[in-house]
Amino acid sequence: MDKHSFVNARYASAPGSPIRELKRFSELPGMISLAGGYPAPELMDSPGLQRIFGGFAPSEFGQALEYGGTEGAMALRVQLARLSSARGMGAEPADVLTLSGSQQGIDLLARTLLSPGDVVLVEAPTYPAALSAFRFAGASIHQLATDDEGLVIDAFEAALVRVKPKLLYIVPTFGNPSGRTLGEARRRALLELAVRHRCLVIEDDPYGDLYFDQAPPPALYSLRRAVDGAEEIVTYLSSLSKTLAPGLRLGWMLAPPDVRRACVLAKQTDDMHASTLTQAVAAAYLGQGLFHAQLPRLRQAYAARAGALVQALREQLGTRIRFTAPGGGMFVWARVPGVDTAQWLKAAIEQRVMFVPGAAFFAQEPDPACFRLSFASQDEAGIAQGVARLAAALRPA
Amino acid sequence: MDKHSFVNARYASAPGSPIRELKRFSELPGMISLAGGYPAPELMDSPGLQRIFGGFAPSEFGQALEYGGTEGAMALRVQLARLSSARGMGAEPADVLTLSGSQQGIDLLARTLLSPGDVVLVEAPTYPAALSAFRFAGASIHQLATDDEGLVIDAFEAALVRVKPKLLYIVPTFGNPSGRTLGEARRRALLELAVRHRCLVIEDDPYGDLYFDQAPPPALYSLRRAVDGAEEIVTYLSSLSKTLAPGLRLGWMLAPPDVRRACVLAKQTDDMHASTLTQAVAAAYLGQGLFHAQLPRLRQAYAARAGALVQALREQLGTRIRFTAPGGGMFVWARVPGVDTAQWLKAAIEQRVMFVPGAAFFAQEPDPACFRLSFASQDEAGIAQGVARLAAALRPA
Repeated sequence: MDKHSFVNARYASAPGSPIRELKRFSELPGMISLAGGYPAPELMDSPGLQRIFGGFAPSEFGQALEYGGTEGAMALRVQLARLSSARGMGAEPADVLTLSGSQQGIDLLARTLLSPGDVVLVEAPTYPAALSAFRFAGASIHQLATDDEGLVIDAFEAALVRVKPKLLYIVPTFGNPSGRTLGEARRRALLELAVRHRCLVIEDDPYGDLYFDQAPPPALYSLRRAVDGAEEIVTYLSSLSKTLAPGLRLGWMLAPPDVRRACVLAKQTDDMHASTLTQAVAAAYLGQGLFHAQLPRLRQAYAARAGALVQALREQLGTRIRFTAPGGGMFVWARVPGVDTAQWLKAAIEQRVMFVPGAAFFAQEPDPACFRLSFASQDEAGIAQGVARLAAALRPA
Repeated sequence: MDKHSFVNARYASAPGSPIRELKRFSELPGMISLAGGYPAPELMDSPGLQRIFGGFAPSEFGQALEYGGTEGAMALRVQLARLSSARGMGAEPADVLTLSGSQQGIDLLARTLLSPGDVVLVEAPTYPAALSAFRFAGASIHQLATDDEGLVIDAFEAALVRVKPKLLYIVPTFGNPSGRTLGEARRRALLELAVRHRCLVIEDDPYGDLYFDQAPPPALYSLRRAVDGAEEIVTYLSSLSKTLAPGLRLGWMLAPPDVRRACVLAKQTDDMHASTLTQAVAAAYLGQGLFHAQLPRLRQAYAARAGALVQALREQLGTRIRFTAPGGGMFVWARVPGVDTAQWLKAAIEQRVMFVPGAAFFAQEPDPACFRLSFASQDEAGIAQGVARLAAALRPA
């Protein structure tokens, strides 16, 4: 009798999410976590959302308990198209595929586009759960150099020629983990190259609405009609998790029709559709204008937290640390030359502060001196105290 | 330039769900749909669920907006373990993997267990969305003969020897579409054979709580300790969609630890976790005893509807139709010898009644004379009228 596990090789050998493994430490008493990219509970409009439930007519509430279409409830698709259009994307409700969080979009695209051996390009560093989705689909992943302005276009062009990728996955705006934003000239150059080499672009944009002082450059998806042929190759993902509430599990996709159709088929056999109930709540919240009223408050609060983190890092770690101050989003990506951040984390946890060591964010050749900090879920005082603990946990240079 | 679609071959060539394609007809005015397996809206406890939202303390509601663990919220896992144990399964909260509907469990298992070319056994007829999930995973599907008592054990044994399957997918209790229930002796024989031939068994059980007169035989999963070695090979899926509300998108899995771990990894990269908010509502509803108070009402209502359908079929279609009266669930599977049910459906839609032709429920060699009727979402009067229209749409023998 074969006593092997029934699990196939890809999943049997996969490690768990390193960020998830850290989660148990976050529950230690007094821990200041700068690790997860979780929106601050006190900044979510919990009373506003709870009032929506009370305000549903019985028939509306009843409908929100039934099965729905895989593409999502029309009331929400209308709102998500409006939100996309407010970002300059000119989307129609019929273009929107509602997702159970934008992470699901990465997974659906990996499943429907990739075949084993296909090459995927990612930024170095990039989002670990995207790496997982591409690995589970059997892809070969190549990472591309980045600088303070995001993806280095020459590196992209060289890879297009050398490794013939099927797709590029990119978080061009307030990147996770980099916090960096790709400039508009690079965005246009990227699209032109992707069209020329027939490389699909997955633009993951969960943070674009969380800018501090000025709006980011237009989304790649917004430029699809400005660059000849780009309409066929850009797929856009966004999320309500960072701006409304992650517990709703709602995101959306805008994609060329054949790509969208394939993702609808994959979603049909997966969860069939996002929760009708959370879709109804989100549609009402957006429809009543509460979401747009809430955004300035979020931007201001996260800007203050980002400012506190930048200031504390400069004060406490001075010349030992290198980073780019972010213009939005939730993250600062930093480097402490000569330090193994995985070792540093152990000492940091003893000091009751946490971050994510950088290794998880690389597809290959991890830089152990890098790490990710999130300023989203601590207030300014917590951030200052957390960074003081970080400094205390760092061995003298 | 390659102008091919970016979609991989498996998804590019896949047809849409045939049941889904029918959905647009269900919106025609006056249509009586006996097609979908949708719980009746008027039987769902919409007021009870809406009251739960009003009753949440602000802090409870706020927590239900945050990210959660992939396995699900502990409060819900406790309730789902209790519900499983009430069905005789002796499950602990730590055993429960909460799903975004039990359909997702089929998909996670297909992705994590199967490699291209692996053989999957299914009943003939079986649930079409399971067929899709196995096909997308690249499996080769073989169907097994069934009779009035469900899966024919000799057919299973012969296939174990002949095609060396990796797994069997089965809806043993009030099957979809068959409405039939596997007897206890067959359940034990099935497990013994599966252990001997090291074939994983996926027991899909969305309907087990919806019995009419008497409880069904113990679940295969309940028998896992009664049959030596069966603990390692049985995986159980169930759902709150048929008994509470499908819009919540909640189901659960009980599985051997290595299988569960693989599904957790796959779910992490998919939707991360089921909606925290719908989990909180379901946990409160179950925890307050409302679910168990509701079940007898559902059983009685569906029993009455099933009785009406059986009676109407006998009265209106007499000897032309063959079927087994179900003891629970939502479906009657029937055969009208000499009739092509896909053609009959066209005439039926003109008469404003719908059912699902049988072809979609077969992995191969579809029997065109078969079809599926659901009695769940029409009341007794609607069922009687629907069957009268069916009879009117049937050409004289």
